[in-house]
Amino acid sequence: MDIAKSTARIEKDLEALKQFTSTKGCGCTRMPFSPEFRKAADYMIAAMTDAGMEVWEDCAGNVFGRIRGKDSSKPCVMMGSHIDSVYNGGDYDGIAGVVTAVEVGRLIKEEGLELEADFVAAGFMDEEGCRFGNGYFGSKCMLGEMTEHETMTFKDRDGITIAEAMRSYNLKPSNIGSCKWPEGSIGHYLELHIEQGPVLDAKKIQLGLVDCIVGIQRYMITVNGRADHAGTTPMDMRIDAMDMAANVVAKIPGFAREQGHGAVATTGYIKATPGGMNVIAQSVEFSVDIRCTEQEIINDITANIKKSLEEETARMGGSYTMEQKLFVTPCKMSAHMLDILEDSCKAHGYSYLRLPSGAGHDALAIGQTIDTVMLFVPSVNARSHCPEEFTPYENFGQAVSVMFDLLKAL
Amino acid sequence: MDIAKSTARIEKDLEALKQFTSTKGCGCTRMPFSPEFRKAADYMIAAMTDAGMEVWEDCAGNVFGRIRGKDSSKPCVMMGSHIDSVYNGGDYDGIAGVVTAVEVGRLIKEEGLELEADFVAAGFMDEEGCRFGNGYFGSKCMLGEMTEHETMTFKDRDGITIAEAMRSYNLKPSNIGSCKWPEGSIGHYLELHIEQGPVLDAKKIQLGLVDCIVGIQRYMITVNGRADHAGTTPMDMRIDAMDMAANVVAKIPGFAREQGHGAVATTGYIKATPGGMNVIAQSVEFSVDIRCTEQEIINDITANIKKSLEEETARMGGSYTMEQKLFVTPCKMSAHMLDILEDSCKAHGYSYLRLPSGAGHDALAIGQTIDTVMLFVPSVNARSHCPEEFTPYENFGQAVSVMFDLLKAL
Repeated sequence: MDIAKSTARIEKDLEALKQFTSTKGCGCTRMPFSPEFRKAADYMIAAMTDAGMEVWEDCAGNVFGRIRGKDSSKPCVMMGSHIDSVYNGGDYDGIAGVVTAVEVGRLIKEEGLELEADFVAAGFMDEEGCRFGNGYFGSKCMLGEMTEHETMTFKDRDGITIAEAMRSYNLKPSNIGSCKWPEGSIGHYLELHIEQGPVLDAKKIQLGLVDCIVGIQRYMITVNGRADHAGTTPMDMRIDAMDMAANVVAKIPGFAREQGHGAVATTGYIKATPGGMNVIAQSVEFSVDIRCTEQEIINDITANIKKSLEEETARMGGSYTMEQKLFVTPCKMSAHMLDILEDSCKAHGYSYLRLPSGAGHDALAIGQTIDTVMLFVPSVNARSHCPEEFTPYENFGQAVSVMFDLLKAL
Repeated sequence: MDIAKSTARIEKDLEALKQFTSTKGCGCTRMPFSPEFRKAADYMIAAMTDAGMEVWEDCAGNVFGRIRGKDSSKPCVMMGSHIDSVYNGGDYDGIAGVVTAVEVGRLIKEEGLELEADFVAAGFMDEEGCRFGNGYFGSKCMLGEMTEHETMTFKDRDGITIAEAMRSYNLKPSNIGSCKWPEGSIGHYLELHIEQGPVLDAKKIQLGLVDCIVGIQRYMITVNGRADHAGTTPMDMRIDAMDMAANVVAKIPGFAREQGHGAVATTGYIKATPGGMNVIAQSVEFSVDIRCTEQEIINDITANIKKSLEEETARMGGSYTMEQKLFVTPCKMSAHMLDILEDSCKAHGYSYLRLPSGAGHDALAIGQTIDTVMLFVPSVNARSHCPEEFTPYENFGQAVSVMFDLLKAL
């Protein structure tokens, strides 16, 4: 294959797709079931058709393009990502994985590759969940994990439900069950995505082989003390919720660091009540987001936080509550496919690194039941979900060549 | 003197004064220049007149009652406190100090005490500063520390200036200079006040001899890091403002504890930006309120906080700003008068404790230039600035007997 030619075609597609945003000049805003999504989906349908694929759209608004192998009854190899974006996001998150899947389709045709089973390029609806507070909508529909009832429960900021949005997009919510692919019909799922983190860019590495998508546990913790006058209450007569909470929050990053294995723990939100400068805090509420590829490590960090909360509240005579807000188990990527990708990187002379994905992707939903692998390309300055999001086009070309090698090996 | 009789009169006055609130059933709300303040001031004027005092009101709305001594040209002994309250406050904060001053006046007359200099009972306007965000208004007017210009700059929540409120109360803001007492005309200032803290009540002590009103330094601190994705950014590539800030906030109470001498340090307010559960904090803003009777200790604590901020921001590569919001120097009470009060407590067999005042009072403003002493009575369950505020009446009777002894000694 001619990598420069592939790179040029990917660049052409991604540059053309930049226009399908509702916030021109302020990044990509391509909400599910919006006119901008429609136009981007139409662009992908045209590109798939041009590549010689059999193209169709399912009842969730997912776009698929198929290239027949010798035996279409065999489990297919699917490659794809999502077409939607966040509000004022970047021009690569999601859509680059769809564009490169179509490019792999072009290469199959150009190189005259004889496939055993079908190759399918996929462009999914609503992975980000920005409009409805949901997420992985399209891929979950494909997996048969979404019901008509759910389309009626999630609403956007204007009160429009997913079902209403679907109808305005000429889709019938009652048909949602038809999106489900038969059990065993997808043999492998491949996804190319921007890293959205600093590792590859900082280390000047060309490709990231995702060995696992992290599990997440998210908690809202409230530490309860007693509000008192900050001037008249001696230090030894306080039940200061801030004193207790700060001692716990300060330890949380260390709990992650001591575990290693890429574990991260973050407190991004904190609030003291009543919040007066001269009032001892009655209560302090804060969030913890813990992620790791090892479920056990997440559990250990959670246990350490609980222990620290016990100790701190016992020290001062306070109390706490800890409410779980999110629970996602880690998803291991296919060891077999990772080895093939690694061999390909070596053969091409690309620098690469095995690393976890700290964010969720369609591959997280799909990888729960289907043999899955992800390939990361660098995010310049780690920027993503913003207009500054960028990845050099040659990295996409390199990724496609490696994905193409994987396809040949499968 | 008959302590039971004094106690009964104090109880009668305080019970009667409870009606002068704009929030009946929800605590005492007696804002400066309000109809409720007018009625409470009239009540005090009547009580002073009944006690045989020469009564007058100054241009700030302060109420005074004088009992002549042998030589009125000698510096007088003044005893008093404030008539106003906070919103939904208690029935004792401030007003109890005015009522007991009048009771001391009654005792002078009843006992036929021959005074060398004049005794003056004072009821001050607007100590709390709740309405206009100001404070110590009446006592500062008496000290000549308030200008007409200042009455035009402070506004209440309805946009009414102090000057406008004064006019509606039949006072002329341009006359404010007339409030000033001649230099040297006040020899001693005595103030009885509820403790507003837990010490006396918890230790079952009857009277508190305030040896010092604490100094205060208040800061708003901002720790700056870098916002990043909480999932994709490894622990060692973060500049997490929360990590830095929490480590500083957690140490602050310890900085106060290790100093002793009643030093207190409080973080009552904290905010992370952007505040998302899955976003590493770009910046964390928090308050610190430091109080102690020793200026040097406050400075030491401030220096320790700065050192901790330097260390934490150096550790992660962040930065910080520290803005001073309040600076009040500690005010020592009169050692001579404290000794007299202590002797009196011993003679009466009252339990007592020398302790600092962690809150400001009229005595803080007046004590900067005039020989001053404060006497605390217990706050049951440390409650104050709320409808539950309470002090047993016998404690007021005891306080009056001790104050009367002090007056005799002076």
